[in-house]
Amino acid sequence: MQDQQTRERSVIESDRVEGTSVYGKNGDKIGSVKRILLDKRSGQARDVEVSVGTFLGMGGELHSLPWEKLEYDTDVGGYKLDVTEDQLREAPTYSENDRDQQFDRDYQTQVYSYWVATPYW
Amino acid sequence: MQDQQTRERSVIESDRVEGTSVYGKNGDKIGSVKRILLDKRSGQARDVEVSVGTFLGMGGELHSLPWEKLEYDTDVGGYKLDVTEDQLREAPTYSENDRDQQFDRDYQTQVYSYWVATPYW
Repeated sequence: MQDQQTRERSVIESDRVEGTSVYGKNGDKIGSVKRILLDKRSGQARDVEVSVGTFLGMGGELHSLPWEKLEYDTDVGGYKLDVTEDQLREAPTYSENDRDQQFDRDYQTQVYSYWVATPYW
Repeated sequence: MQDQQTRERSVIESDRVEGTSVYGKNGDKIGSVKRILLDKRSGQARDVEVSVGTFLGMGGELHSLPWEKLEYDTDVGGYKLDVTEDQLREAPTYSENDRDQQFDRDYQTQVYSYWVATPYW
């Protein structure tokens, strides 16, 4: 939970987003943000890596998904997704040991298709 | 220095930007990125916190400056600023113990004036 001042600001620190909880459509915590993928030049967030099912920070699945699918909720001081945990788990995924997978165009195409988003590339 | 694949990607991980070197107009390293301030909703990078003059990660000055002033350089795998270290040190600054200063509108107005950038607010 964030303090009042932080909630009112329009900006948030990148290292504060990392680790922030992600809530599902039922309001349950379904995962947390690992990191954001930013366009190197424009600084626009493109994708967000979300981990699901970790225990004490270990294990779990990684999903990258279009930034636009996350909705910031000032009440909870976190991001919401309009899906359930099961739906998130069914989304394209990769393991911590194969993180480069998220940059693969075929994988990315699956991601943007699954989440019904317009590719940025 | 980053590997070839990382250089060719259009996106970069937020936790990789944190700690990335910032080079000055003479090509010297003049500081490093501490974190990025992102618009909570749009995901657009607004400001970047740069530390100058740290020693083993300790001390140093903090400056926040408009994201648009950073130029990504694929050759060095880092960001360039079109100023010297002295010019960066003359920019509006705040201490690690008073990081909330960067959200103060008067401070931000000084920053955007110093860097000749259009405020986002």
